[in-house]
Amino acid sequence: MINRVEVPSDRIRNINNSQNGVIQPLLTDLYQINMAYAYWKSGKHHEKAVFDLFFRKNPFQGEFTIFAGLEEVLTFLNNFSYSESDIEYLRVTMAETVEDEFFEYLSSISTTDVTLYAVDEGKVVFPRVPLLILEGPLIVVQLLETTLLNLVNYASLIATNAARYRMAAGRKIQLLEFGLRRAQGPDGGLSASKYAYIGGFDGTSNVLAGKLYNIPVKGTHAHSYISSYSSLAELQIETLQHKETKEDMNLKDRSLAWRELLSTELNILQSEASDGELAAYISFAIAFPTGFVALVDTYDVLKSGLLNFCAVALGLNDLGYRALGIRIDSGDLAYLSCVARSTFVTVAEKFNVDWLEHVQIVASNDINEETIISLNEQGHKIDCFGIGTHLVTCQRQPALGCVFKLVEINGEAKIKLSQDVEKVTCPGKKTVYRLYGEDGHALIDLMHRTQEPAPKCGSRVLCRHPFQESKRAYVSPAQVESLHKLYWNEGKIQQELPELTEIRDRVSSSLQTLRQDHKRNLNPTPYKVGVTDDLYNFLHDLWLQNAPIGELF
Amino acid sequence: MINRVEVPSDRIRNINNSQNGVIQPLLTDLYQINMAYAYWKSGKHHEKAVFDLFFRKNPFQGEFTIFAGLEEVLTFLNNFSYSESDIEYLRVTMAETVEDEFFEYLSSISTTDVTLYAVDEGKVVFPRVPLLILEGPLIVVQLLETTLLNLVNYASLIATNAARYRMAAGRKIQLLEFGLRRAQGPDGGLSASKYAYIGGFDGTSNVLAGKLYNIPVKGTHAHSYISSYSSLAELQIETLQHKETKEDMNLKDRSLAWRELLSTELNILQSEASDGELAAYISFAIAFPTGFVALVDTYDVLKSGLLNFCAVALGLNDLGYRALGIRIDSGDLAYLSCVARSTFVTVAEKFNVDWLEHVQIVASNDINEETIISLNEQGHKIDCFGIGTHLVTCQRQPALGCVFKLVEINGEAKIKLSQDVEKVTCPGKKTVYRLYGEDGHALIDLMHRTQEPAPKCGSRVLCRHPFQESKRAYVSPAQVESLHKLYWNEGKIQQELPELTEIRDRVSSSLQTLRQDHKRNLNPTPYKVGVTDDLYNFLHDLWLQNAPIGELF
Repeated sequence: MINRVEVPSDRIRNINNSQNGVIQPLLTDLYQINMAYAYWKSGKHHEKAVFDLFFRKNPFQGEFTIFAGLEEVLTFLNNFSYSESDIEYLRVTMAETVEDEFFEYLSSISTTDVTLYAVDEGKVVFPRVPLLILEGPLIVVQLLETTLLNLVNYASLIATNAARYRMAAGRKIQLLEFGLRRAQGPDGGLSASKYAYIGGFDGTSNVLAGKLYNIPVKGTHAHSYISSYSSLAELQIETLQHKETKEDMNLKDRSLAWRELLSTELNILQSEASDGELAAYISFAIAFPTGFVALVDTYDVLKSGLLNFCAVALGLNDLGYRALGIRIDSGDLAYLSCVARSTFVTVAEKFNVDWLEHVQIVASNDINEETIISLNEQGHKIDCFGIGTHLVTCQRQPALGCVFKLVEINGEAKIKLSQDVEKVTCPGKKTVYRLYGEDGHALIDLMHRTQEPAPKCGSRVLCRHPFQESKRAYVSPAQVESLHKLYWNEGKIQQELPELTEIRDRVSSSLQTLRQDHKRNLNPTPYKVGVTDDLYNFLHDLWLQNAPIGELF
Repeated sequence: MINRVEVPSDRIRNINNSQNGVIQPLLTDLYQINMAYAYWKSGKHHEKAVFDLFFRKNPFQGEFTIFAGLEEVLTFLNNFSYSESDIEYLRVTMAETVEDEFFEYLSSISTTDVTLYAVDEGKVVFPRVPLLILEGPLIVVQLLETTLLNLVNYASLIATNAARYRMAAGRKIQLLEFGLRRAQGPDGGLSASKYAYIGGFDGTSNVLAGKLYNIPVKGTHAHSYISSYSSLAELQIETLQHKETKEDMNLKDRSLAWRELLSTELNILQSEASDGELAAYISFAIAFPTGFVALVDTYDVLKSGLLNFCAVALGLNDLGYRALGIRIDSGDLAYLSCVARSTFVTVAEKFNVDWLEHVQIVASNDINEETIISLNEQGHKIDCFGIGTHLVTCQRQPALGCVFKLVEINGEAKIKLSQDVEKVTCPGKKTVYRLYGEDGHALIDLMHRTQEPAPKCGSRVLCRHPFQESKRAYVSPAQVESLHKLYWNEGKIQQELPELTEIRDRVSSSLQTLRQDHKRNLNPTPYKVGVTDDLYNFLHDLWLQNAPIGELF
């Protein structure tokens, strides 16, 4: 016998947390800290910088994105501080030439002098419009970059993905997130559950997410539960109390009797149905008489699962209970769901058990947005989708490309040039307005220089494409919304933070302000993001000033 | 001024951690706990079950996988216990019909009666071979499923991805993981750093990963650092002590003088080079005289970046220091790296500064496995790749499909049937041997029934395809390795756990036992996984017993 070998406690996964459940400031790229030192060393650290956090392209070949992660960003700002052990680690890790005074300085910095303007969490957002605008000492804001990107990128990606599934499925279908086992790490799973809920899912299988975020949790049983029973003889308990009379009644005998009747009625051979499956259903129904959902595809949905489910459902009915439904985890989901529903209708009518007609049909096999759209086209009777891998890993595009760009330093606008026009940044601190038409739909997000007056309802305003000179249009907004709010100032959160359910409602209502053609799955129309004439000229003047006169193009 | 609004402390991200940095048992799917109750209710919870954790298909269209995540699995088993607040949450969340005694029982369970056999972490593994074999009370082992899958799936996926990058890049190239900002959540980033290192990367930009796992951390500066300087007038410090003499010398003046000389020598117009960039390089070199690496593509690599870098490098040389290299983050990496290297060679020769010829060229723009292969074909002079999004999100396949299947209960083997032959499970508890040929290459992984004797070196053994009757071959192994070790028993870890660097070495040596044709990028040959004749017959007899006689095929 080998002695017990402990995992060294400092190697135990303690993630982004110190002891207090807070994301640590060392969850960043080393180059941020190297830059911080170089800024400090050259006396630039107190310069006042403005950074924009934005993305350049909507994910999933779509034309919208849901902004999420703000609450976590605020929590991070609120707790931002290097611990003694962080400083100690940096001291031994950074170059020997780094001066001691820098580490003293680093241990003193906080986000007190940082100001954050942000879009409300859950709002629909578009390329180039800043999601976050951070103002403050160059060194501090630079040190926040990586962590903010990490917190916003995946949160927004998964919320957007979930919102797309919701649109594909429609309002009436229940959507459950089942992705924990395939998520990118433990916290990948937790974030997926949280932000899928915000995006429009109804619940999750992830119990810890339920506990932490108060999200509804759902679940029945796995194939292993069904196959853990081989025969009816294995049932150690066969009885269940009648719901009303509390009389002990034999569910096994009743289910068997019903199965015999149903076998004739549905023309399914009893000999082909699995007795182990029936035993598993009976035991599960005895454990969950008010919550009986049966996984019906362990052996054969049509020859075994449906028959056994209906037998136990009618048995439960005798005892005053109603079964909730079935789950199908393989095969032709459209076809099987239709057969299942028509079976329930037949049985409900034949045996006068109305509720059985409407039990829930859950489908859960490798489902993605396209599967749902294809199922809709084929016609199906599914009431609920359980969605895992494709949702949580965002298989179609597993990363959102948010970037964090310096746009102003000491009041002087900065522009980042690139051969690729799409990568040229919009310089200076900006104010952004969303202009709405008479019908309540959003028309355009218009970026202003901060000193410009806000657009007025009913007055026309010239909106320009930021890079294509000839693309201009006058817009007369019926409603004007300032997109950013002051969320962090003087070391304090400045807005009341909504509950997850409120953010979830905001996703839904924000998407409703978007025209259908921006949201459709196939070739959606890009939503317009423009700049004022003033900002257009400012941007292009600065571009010319900064671009060297080169060779012939 | 709005009052400060706090984020409710129970909503602050505390991930899989309670207070103590340990993954909580509630990080699971609700159906596991529902099944646990049903097992308990029907008296089945003490039945002895065996589960296999395995995958069915190698990721990334490859023919091998690196197994990782075992240490975290063991830590999870070591700490598995429901807290009072977990039980309280389950009490209010589960169906009202769940009996109180169950919660008492649940709060008492532990993994003391669980036995875990596992492949060593870092070994190369193949489809259908169990990575983990868990034996123990049905209820406990079932409750572990989701968390174990979560811990193994992403860890193995990212280790495999990293190992593939390492093979594509070759032994001599340095590989750095730069993915934190695009990873799937904070912990997605940490896991990526850890398992990319195991898979063969040399370091990470992620500082917290460096601190927690003792991984080398690397980093220089971002484009924002370069563009934070507009002119040389902004330099507040121009001097640096000579490395040996400690005499204060003016690095700015020297760099400017060198730039003038170089401009003629390299035929690059000084007027086209950015002064802001030069100022940024000088300030960074003053901060990191022994660690100067310059990002050269903010303006133009050929017209500005290389010239400015060489100017500062020669300035540093005057002061007794050596620059380390450059980073290129955009453009044609093959071409630019070749021009950069030939520039360094020219300047080194011309000015008699030998070391400059060999400074490191780092490339870091949206690189994936295919980019590296394509760069190799084109020819390049890159010494180091910084790899982010594609590596950490495993863009090509963001999830590994490990499953957890019941194979035995109370000594009775179980088989999971499926229309899809690939999904039929291999029943019963098994022993697996890896057979090696004379040249040290692995030939086949052979699954045995546990009661069968081990294969012997030099004796031929019949190896069968698990499903295709006619595929059989005799193998005479030169070496026989038992793939699984007892890692957890009687509530204790049973093996000494290796350091990350040892696991990293194991990945490398394990891959060396694999023939090249299994590892190549294009159309690799599948490695063989077979069963003994005894297991073949056992599997197929059980299959026939369990499959109903159906309609004509």
